[in-house]
Amino acid sequence: MIVVLAPDSFKGALTAPAACDALAAGLRRVWPQVQARACPMADGGEGTLDAVLHAAGPAATRAVVRVPGAAGGSVDAAYGLLHDHGTRVAVIEIAQVVGITDAVAMRAPAGERSTAGIGVLMRALLDQGLREFHVGLGGSSTSDGGAGMLAALGLQLLDARGRTVEPTPCGLAALAAVDATGLDPRIADARITILSDVNNPLTGTLGAVAVFGPQKGVGAEDVATFDATLERYAALTQEALGRRVATQPGAGAAGGLGFALQLLGGVTQSGAEVVADLVGLDGALRDADWVVTGEGRSDRQTLLAKGPFVVAARARRAGVPITLLSGAVDPASLPVLAPHFAGCFALPPGPATLDQCIASTPEWLADRVEQVARALAAAWQQRLPT
Amino acid sequence: MIVVLAPDSFKGALTAPAACDALAAGLRRVWPQVQARACPMADGGEGTLDAVLHAAGPAATRAVVRVPGAAGGSVDAAYGLLHDHGTRVAVIEIAQVVGITDAVAMRAPAGERSTAGIGVLMRALLDQGLREFHVGLGGSSTSDGGAGMLAALGLQLLDARGRTVEPTPCGLAALAAVDATGLDPRIADARITILSDVNNPLTGTLGAVAVFGPQKGVGAEDVATFDATLERYAALTQEALGRRVATQPGAGAAGGLGFALQLLGGVTQSGAEVVADLVGLDGALRDADWVVTGEGRSDRQTLLAKGPFVVAARARRAGVPITLLSGAVDPASLPVLAPHFAGCFALPPGPATLDQCIASTPEWLADRVEQVARALAAAWQQRLPT
Repeated sequence: MIVVLAPDSFKGALTAPAACDALAAGLRRVWPQVQARACPMADGGEGTLDAVLHAAGPAATRAVVRVPGAAGGSVDAAYGLLHDHGTRVAVIEIAQVVGITDAVAMRAPAGERSTAGIGVLMRALLDQGLREFHVGLGGSSTSDGGAGMLAALGLQLLDARGRTVEPTPCGLAALAAVDATGLDPRIADARITILSDVNNPLTGTLGAVAVFGPQKGVGAEDVATFDATLERYAALTQEALGRRVATQPGAGAAGGLGFALQLLGGVTQSGAEVVADLVGLDGALRDADWVVTGEGRSDRQTLLAKGPFVVAARARRAGVPITLLSGAVDPASLPVLAPHFAGCFALPPGPATLDQCIASTPEWLADRVEQVARALAAAWQQRLPT
Repeated sequence: MIVVLAPDSFKGALTAPAACDALAAGLRRVWPQVQARACPMADGGEGTLDAVLHAAGPAATRAVVRVPGAAGGSVDAAYGLLHDHGTRVAVIEIAQVVGITDAVAMRAPAGERSTAGIGVLMRALLDQGLREFHVGLGGSSTSDGGAGMLAALGLQLLDARGRTVEPTPCGLAALAAVDATGLDPRIADARITILSDVNNPLTGTLGAVAVFGPQKGVGAEDVATFDATLERYAALTQEALGRRVATQPGAGAAGGLGFALQLLGGVTQSGAEVVADLVGLDGALRDADWVVTGEGRSDRQTLLAKGPFVVAARARRAGVPITLLSGAVDPASLPVLAPHFAGCFALPPGPATLDQCIASTPEWLADRVEQVARALAAAWQQRLPT
């Protein structure tokens, strides 16, 4: 029996690698000799680094570097180094540097946060000789259009009197000129893959500030101002760098960091698709009997290229049945989810609060996969020649 | 595709026949042409009459007769008449007459409730010529040792001065003599099958009052008194009727009504086993591909001859895989439940309160069976010759 375990993280409850462990434990209760192939998934956001490093095993290195936090101070940011057919690839999860779960940064006003730490990290990696970057967007606390990163890489952001402005929504309000002559020349040789599942443009009603600002603490009264600031910033930086990307899908990802990375030549790809490649999902699916995926909560949005959906598409291509086990499965979305899976199951074993669900996720995940395994085992048994 | 639907009721949420309807609706989403064989289950307690009448279809009649309630007044008690190979069988669910869900009766003190209504109902059935009785115990509000029933059938319960006493725990405290000469002689020709899943004796620490009294409102201070009253009542009635049954398993069922029915020659059988026979479960299992059972809450007690467990044993004998779908499945009991089922699943699709669970039972039951069906369908598909 070969089972591929390809869950996303269960946000707030369980990392994807830990979910793989829980699933494997549940399966062994039914099939003690099961070959459980762990392919922890992520969509470019929080958990991406964990998933990729776990899957790569000894072919990867986890490193930590001290860089500026989103609101000053410093954070110890983890990143990964993969060895891919002789090329070294840096895996950056921006949530490790400017994450919305960083309580210190979140206490600072949204207008004073920047992505400078990302630029400092990239410069350090360029210094190490790296030119291949996978940058997982998602879960950022920032709305600076990636100005912090660009500034750390040498772009000059100046006010009307030629003084450097802070690369934050508030600082950029005074932006009058952009000088790209100091930009780190090694960037031109870099290949940047942007992992994202966000299609928003940089500005406007579907832009970074209007759509994602409020959940980062941007006050309703600041949305229009910040958006106008980003629009002027975009015009000036595009002019300076000779590229027009502000209206491209994904420019609005991670508070506009998507825009800045595209400005540096970065190419946006579906985060879950890239992670599926990095964790070797297609190889794991070969000869497999069953796939299990899952996430914290499944609903209509799961179908927007989230981890479980990407896994489902690949499992179908490989002809392997796939079951979804999530902390919650929205009943109203079941009609659109169900056709993609050999069963969608939630975890609660009865009435339960959200806190109970979060605390019990590992145990319930093992229990649930065991029960589905028992159902499948009975069905397989039944149709085997007697 | 032939699927046998044999759920118990989901107490407080859904009758067993309604659960069959919900399950059938869920199955049709996967297999529009499914042959769903409804065998609603019960264990002798509340829901037994519904299940048996539903399964018997036109071979059964539902009737109603007005009889005394447990605490006086009157109740419209439903009962069933089955035509079994030329013999007419009366199906009595005592919860219909002296049910613990009767709010009026439950407002009266536990010491003043009696089973007189059961005796009145039986006399009416004897008048109709019936001699075959299936009496489903369970869910009673009474603790009278069946004295009310016996009195209604002609047994005289007298105090030291020869006056009739009330057939209630309080009235029986003055019991000094029992005269059986007036007992309805037709009872001697009756065959009484007692449907119960309770093995308790009439009195003592495992007796009707000590174990079941508190949930019926017997105060802690009354337990010893009522128990002693029942012990003396048992001695006198046994003497008068020439049978000793107070220590028999099931004598303590339904507040001692089990004792009184055994005194009349009744034979106790597993409620779920008898219902399984009455609903024709074994016949339905022939050629079936899958069985679905369920109940409101599953735990260790499910293994004590509850409906789903009896269905599981018969499904195994017939070689048909069976899945359990319950409102809640106690995680701590899963290790002992799991080996009996091809999957045990609870209904909540995420964090939910008990009230939400109860209100959504029909929808969630249909959703859940659909998802398990999708998993099984994928497994069957996979192993079919291509």
